[in-house]
Amino acid sequence: MMRSKVLCLVPRATGVCRHMSTATKLTTVAVDDKTGIATLTMNRPPVNGLNLDLLRDLHQSIEEVEGNKSRGLILTSSNPTIFSAGLDILEMYKPDKERIRAFWTALQDVWLALYGSSVPTAAAINGHSPAGGCLLATSCEYRVMLPKFTIGLNETKLGIVAPKWFMSSFLSVLPRREAERALNQGRMFTTEEALKIGLIDEVAISKDQALDKCAQFIGTFAKVNPLARSLTKQQLRAVELQQLENERAQDLERFLFFVNQPAVQKGLGIYLESLKKKAKN
Amino acid sequence: MMRSKVLCLVPRATGVCRHMSTATKLTTVAVDDKTGIATLTMNRPPVNGLNLDLLRDLHQSIEEVEGNKSRGLILTSSNPTIFSAGLDILEMYKPDKERIRAFWTALQDVWLALYGSSVPTAAAINGHSPAGGCLLATSCEYRVMLPKFTIGLNETKLGIVAPKWFMSSFLSVLPRREAERALNQGRMFTTEEALKIGLIDEVAISKDQALDKCAQFIGTFAKVNPLARSLTKQQLRAVELQQLENERAQDLERFLFFVNQPAVQKGLGIYLESLKKKAKN
Amino acid sequence: MMRSKVLCLVPRATGVCRHMSTATKLTTVAVDDKTGIATLTMNRPPVNGLNLDLLRDLHQSIEEVEGNKSRGLILTSSNPTIFSAGLDILEMYKPDKERIRAFWTALQDVWLALYGSSVPTAAAINGHSPAGGCLLATSCEYRVMLPKFTIGLNETKLGIVAPKWFMSSFLSVLPRREAERALNQGRMFTTEEALKIGLIDEVAISKDQALDKCAQFIGTFAKVNPLARSLTKQQLRAVELQQLENERAQDLERFLFFVNQPAVQKGLGIYLESLKKKAKN
Repeated sequence: MMRSKVLCLVPRATGVCRHMSTATKLTTVAVDDKTGIATLTMNRPPVNGLNLDLLRDLHQSIEEVEGNKSRGLILTSSNPTIFSAGLDILEMYKPDKERIRAFWTALQDVWLALYGSSVPTAAAINGHSPAGGCLLATSCEYRVMLPKFTIGLNETKLGIVAPKWFMSSFLSVLPRREAERALNQGRMFTTEEALKIGLIDEVAISKDQALDKCAQFIGTFAKVNPLARSLTKQQLRAVELQQLENERAQDLERFLFFVNQPAVQKGLGIYLESLKKKAKN
Repeated sequence: MMRSKVLCLVPRATGVCRHMSTATKLTTVAVDDKTGIATLTMNRPPVNGLNLDLLRDLHQSIEEVEGNKSRGLILTSSNPTIFSAGLDILEMYKPDKERIRAFWTALQDVWLALYGSSVPTAAAINGHSPAGGCLLATSCEYRVMLPKFTIGLNETKLGIVAPKWFMSSFLSVLPRREAERALNQGRMFTTEEALKIGLIDEVAISKDQALDKCAQFIGTFAKVNPLARSLTKQQLRAVELQQLENERAQDLERFLFFVNQPAVQKGLGIYLESLKKKAKN
Repeated sequence: MMRSKVLCLVPRATGVCRHMSTATKLTTVAVDDKTGIATLTMNRPPVNGLNLDLLRDLHQSIEEVEGNKSRGLILTSSNPTIFSAGLDILEMYKPDKERIRAFWTALQDVWLALYGSSVPTAAAINGHSPAGGCLLATSCEYRVMLPKFTIGLNETKLGIVAPKWFMSSFLSVLPRREAERALNQGRMFTTEEALKIGLIDEVAISKDQALDKCAQFIGTFAKVNPLARSLTKQQLRAVELQQLENERAQDLERFLFFVNQPAVQKGLGIYLESLKKKAKN
């Protein structure tokens, strides 16, 4: 990925922006000179819907941070009210046969790269974070969220089943009983509820404060040996990562089989119609 | 199972009883016309001891609810002070060779059907709930309990080892540390203790209120796609369910070997004697 | 192991010391006549560093308690400020090829014996308890700690990766999210923090009180069938125990490969130098 020193999209009072990738337009990576922390910003208007392009850019950006010796990765959004609205329904509704395969494969890539990242990861959740948005957030090691937003894996409300590895991230954060109930209910948690149950770690009153708190979390690793840390994290997450690695092909086929069910397609169609109406009002 | 429209055994202020199975006498199933929720009542005096007959009726009733498109299943007891006293010791003391096999197999059937049920499940625990009673309660997704009763897996106090799948239900509800300690101690929790540790979800002051709270929990799934919900729940519980499915025969042999140990038989005999004395006083 | 009735090293107001092993000098086992509880004291000045000799003595002492029909095992330290400083770095720095194999094997033996012990186990943590010290404490079923000390698996701070079975003990005590974060950070918890998160169960104001509280915990099993209890505990811990049993040889080779890395040796050298300087001041 090419890099150029340009204006920092996410200027911060406490640091100076060193460099930023501009090879893609849907994500940006800005590394803070002072802290060495990379901020990865999703920037696909209007709602950071995870389509094939955004997923590929996300994957590339995570790999870039992995390779550029950053001290840590903060994931956030350029949108003031949406972290990410989750998977782009348009990729799943009446899908192109080749493209939907690439789409799901890219989603697998993103999760494997983010959940398995060797650098410390934190999410500055500066907006609503349903479904795939919650997946990204719970794949990080720390979560700071702004008030009055919602977060959760609400797949069952959309007539979809979250795959096992979506659940892995969720179950690594919440107690089993709470996780199972929320998954079955497709429950969205308010910021306050999410804090109480442990789905997020802190609340911040602004995006800047959220980024600061994430940086503080990453700062707790300052005196930790990076190699030992990385091997420790990967050992802890090995079971879930290995499971998807071993089942990538079957997982893809399972998804394709499910999404192509007439009932699921019908449900997605109704949901898209409701979104269009909402947009008009 | 035959069905007839008869008087509802469990009349409720908020609904009208639609139908009720009468094919068996040890359990009844009443489906509320308004809510579509089935209430499964155990009715084997004096203590809902889980013998072969009650287990078979329970299995049949759970399957019936599974098949009749109910919105959910509430498990409760017709006894005002006992939810279920657990496995009937008489089935295990000086057992008949064939009958004890059928007994354990029926217990496996009940757990597989209840823990793996596709409909939302809740237990209205209107009395004491030791051992097998606690297994039934923790195999549901939600638990509401009346005050001044006790619940727990107290097998070690009876000189018995709870099989792995008893522990599965328990471990899916409690944190590992608490679950392990309670299992080792054979600890019975009071209603208040159970609420504090998370073994139950709510306390109700009457059976009617407990049934209402269970119905409210089931109501949280009103806007959830039933198929997506069912697949989600089964995916979450697949590991434990599959484990018993794969080991049913070995699990049976393990139980038979254990229960036939002279020390275990002696312990059961002493326990039965103490129960008889208690009954006289 | 030879036994002789000698003065009790750990006299207690509430009991009389029955016997004590003296075959080793680095650990002592004293069984209380009244309670039947064995107190295993680590006694290798200056910091109970776990070298080959202490590990072998620990293993022998745990096996002795296992065999002598004790009602339970309390693990503690003769040092007034250190429970155990963890693995003795001198065993790992520029190691002798044969001795380091024996060292790691002895550590495996200790964990398998303690985590899998059939008797109730409790740790009276009367001093700092980093790394291997925390491993010993979390392998017991109950933890009572004195104020103003610290406990944790701080391996990543030393540039080391805790093996999977170190993590097993830790994960059996703490929620996954907290455990993972602490392991990545190599975090040491104060007594107060450890209590809050659940890493310890109680705080005691003196070693005597800690021993009493441990004895009270072991007393909760007074009315429990010992065989049923032991089988229950082992069934709960079987997965982790079996995993190491199956991988002992690979686990040893993995450790040897890791510890012999030049970067790790260099890190251990620097750490040893810093300890020497500290000792002089």
